[in-house]
Amino acid sequence: MAAARRMVVVGGDAAGMTAASQARRLQGPDELEIVAFERGDFSSYSACGIPYWIGGDVAQRDDLIARTPEEHRERGIDLRMRTEVTALDLDGGRVRARELPGRGDGSRDGTGTGDGARSGAELREYWTEFDDLVLATGARPTRPPLPGIDAEGVHGVQSLEDGQALLDALERADRRADGAALRAVVVGAGYIGVEMAEALVRRKYEVTVLDQAPQPMTTLDPDMGELVRESMCDMGMEVVTDAAVTAIETAEPDAGGRKGDGREGDGRNGGRVTAVTTESARYPADVVVLGLGVAPETSLAREAGLPLGASGGLLTDLAMRVRGRENIWAGGDCVEVLDLVSGRTRHIALGTHANKQGQVIGANIGGGYGTFPGVVGTAVSKVCDLEIARTGLLEAQARAVGLQFVTVTAEATSRAGYFPGSRPMRVKMLAERGTGKLLGAQIVGREGAGKRVDIAAVALTAGMTVEQMTFLDLGYAPPFSPVWDPVLVAARKATAAVKERG
Amino acid sequence: MAAARRMVVVGGDAAGMTAASQARRLQGPDELEIVAFERGDFSSYSACGIPYWIGGDVAQRDDLIARTPEEHRERGIDLRMRTEVTALDLDGGRVRARELPGRGDGSRDGTGTGDGARSGAELREYWTEFDDLVLATGARPTRPPLPGIDAEGVHGVQSLEDGQALLDALERADRRADGAALRAVVVGAGYIGVEMAEALVRRKYEVTVLDQAPQPMTTLDPDMGELVRESMCDMGMEVVTDAAVTAIETAEPDAGGRKGDGREGDGRNGGRVTAVTTESARYPADVVVLGLGVAPETSLAREAGLPLGASGGLLTDLAMRVRGRENIWAGGDCVEVLDLVSGRTRHIALGTHANKQGQVIGANIGGGYGTFPGVVGTAVSKVCDLEIARTGLLEAQARAVGLQFVTVTAEATSRAGYFPGSRPMRVKMLAERGTGKLLGAQIVGREGAGKRVDIAAVALTAGMTVEQMTFLDLGYAPPFSPVWDPVLVAARKATAAVKERG
Repeated sequence: MAAARRMVVVGGDAAGMTAASQARRLQGPDELEIVAFERGDFSSYSACGIPYWIGGDVAQRDDLIARTPEEHRERGIDLRMRTEVTALDLDGGRVRARELPGRGDGSRDGTGTGDGARSGAELREYWTEFDDLVLATGARPTRPPLPGIDAEGVHGVQSLEDGQALLDALERADRRADGAALRAVVVGAGYIGVEMAEALVRRKYEVTVLDQAPQPMTTLDPDMGELVRESMCDMGMEVVTDAAVTAIETAEPDAGGRKGDGREGDGRNGGRVTAVTTESARYPADVVVLGLGVAPETSLAREAGLPLGASGGLLTDLAMRVRGRENIWAGGDCVEVLDLVSGRTRHIALGTHANKQGQVIGANIGGGYGTFPGVVGTAVSKVCDLEIARTGLLEAQARAVGLQFVTVTAEATSRAGYFPGSRPMRVKMLAERGTGKLLGAQIVGREGAGKRVDIAAVALTAGMTVEQMTFLDLGYAPPFSPVWDPVLVAARKATAAVKERG
Repeated sequence: MAAARRMVVVGGDAAGMTAASQARRLQGPDELEIVAFERGDFSSYSACGIPYWIGGDVAQRDDLIARTPEEHRERGIDLRMRTEVTALDLDGGRVRARELPGRGDGSRDGTGTGDGARSGAELREYWTEFDDLVLATGARPTRPPLPGIDAEGVHGVQSLEDGQALLDALERADRRADGAALRAVVVGAGYIGVEMAEALVRRKYEVTVLDQAPQPMTTLDPDMGELVRESMCDMGMEVVTDAAVTAIETAEPDAGGRKGDGREGDGRNGGRVTAVTTESARYPADVVVLGLGVAPETSLAREAGLPLGASGGLLTDLAMRVRGRENIWAGGDCVEVLDLVSGRTRHIALGTHANKQGQVIGANIGGGYGTFPGVVGTAVSKVCDLEIARTGLLEAQARAVGLQFVTVTAEATSRAGYFPGSRPMRVKMLAERGTGKLLGAQIVGREGAGKRVDIAAVALTAGMTVEQMTFLDLGYAPPFSPVWDPVLVAARKATAAVKERG
């Protein structure tokens, strides 16, 4: 018996497969057929976990896979791996899919999770009709067109395939070690760059982090970013800012130790990386990691004429329907989300949003109802024992939407001052002039710092003023907090600043 | 030059001295004279830290003192230690104060912080006039009139004096150790009782915790309290519930090892504790710790005819004025606070509330303006590595105010499941039928569990529904949280339960 309707999902990671799973929970195979296409080798994995896998915190790649293709299929989802959607025919209600070569081709390590079975068999290309289409095509890493960018030894860390390739390269290098320290250059000092820098330090690399901005972590205000720089230097990383990369230098692969590993003639051009150059300096490198952030992968959507925002992300309504389309849905790293503080849409690539949006899409397609109300821009990261968190708007972001505000920073401790393990942290807060409404918060500290940003995230969502926040009834006991929680200390200072400024 | 006005504070701990300090910050000695009375030996100390001092986490008593009497005096506050206020003459605008004997009397160890200078000198008794009076008389520990309750070896842990006496006793006992394990009985399995039980376990005592309730931690629902019981047993404590203490058995102090320590004839009656008995059993004890909670210390206020709530705590308005009185203020453990969830006033003895209320009182007396809006009933505690947290209403509390609700519990982890150090936690949530408004949350888990209650505390304050909470933009990264934060997992389950129940 054919199902009454067919849901087609493009992209087999967080948003797409959460949508598929949620729809399946609500409707059985008789009501809803679900077909999902994934062009890669892995489904439902945690890209956020890749730095920790590379650094050794996470023992093996499969730990990062929440649900394998086989598990999805057991739940009644027809997930087709290594199958790329090449065109959307929205008026015709169909998508074109093309099976990709599986194992054994030169550009892959053959590490797929069992979906290379078609290798050698005929590769099909076909149209599939849909009643509801879910676009969950994710994001692609920024990869500037620099000389040498495709050299051997230059790695992205966006996908598990990327991670595996980097890990293989690091392990070969580890084995080669001839006494001299290996050198890594990380391009980009944002979350991923900084997390990767830590991973490489843990692997005993000499690490240099380059960023064209004047500070690391441009997701923070400059003053807070400087705290991160100091800590990175304490960890033994070289941090170079105002450093735009001009080229990646390469040499022909040398023969020593490289022969017989099957990597020659693998289609890479330009030989092996030897250094990264900026306008003013040259940084020798055995490995280069690109951590330059990501952009929405919406080329299919663009070709199909779907509405895109300034970042190139798909624009949706609150139910996660693509704007103006009844049966086209989108979620995850390929969409723009509503920023509840600025009122603008933004591109924020985060697994937690992708999951929630997928949940909403699945509920709506499955006959339920849900909306994704938007975000406040919360992010946390950990580098060694440094915890870095933000929510809401940075100063520049607040100015860009015409907001006037006061800022304060407060120094406080994670526990009662007398309690063992109490660690200092700095909390910065932005509050609107006049109204005193919280606009944003940033926290840099050690253990106990990062997740405190949640207090500000909830307060932002609720539209609280910093004065209201001052009296929040937060959990207090000496092992958890001083009598005045660090967030309350900052809120109290911000309240005074709002009153003073008027 | 005499000051224009005089502020008199009764009680030299968190609420009183914060009020004094804040008022002093706003007005100088020419405008405002500040006189504060404290009957004990210590000012501005953290009673919450006592269990950690006894347990050895906090090295010395003085670490718990935020500000000494001398430091207060340097800031222009006339703090009079070991001086008890014995009567309030509100119509006359004055209080009667009596100087207490200082060092050297039999009931003290002579550990005062330098205020025993009047010892031997004449002890004065006098009236002091006020323009504004602050009552910050704190709370007294519950001490049931059991046979033997005053025996040597029975200790409260409310004040630093109590803590010092217990510590001295433990150290004497430690020295006496003849091979047999020393036995401690803790009466009361609430926060203080459980924290003291941990402290005694760390001091190698065999610990039995008795409580007349059917569960430990009656600040949690029974199902969550049972989790605490399990963990306490894992820590090697014996936990006996439904166990009402009937008597404390004593013996005359034996001579061995006791002579010459200056404790004979110290005014204690009934000899030395040997056991605690309940209706059905007898628990041998070398030391007994009373952890039965506290009640507001408002005998002066009661005699003066000030309005008290059901718990005996003073009733105030939002500015912390005693109801119906223009110039009488009250804060800290001697007042009832407005519970924003139930709409009732409650007695909650917590240093964090005392500080905030003192801040408000000081601002108002000092010519500023502030209000204390109320609490949502948040509390956290740590016992060994177990973290216990609650906010809002328990089931019984919700029923008592006529609310209908659904409950859910969710099992989740503190970090991404694949991340090292990820620990399980259980989150319970109460949501109102119909509206879906959050009514309360309880969390029991390990590292990373306790302070997550802040998310629910802020959501409660903002009046959020559990459905709104589901989409909160909380900090996500693998070392901090799974993609769905445990609190969101519970909120999602609660949303479904509300919809199902209608």
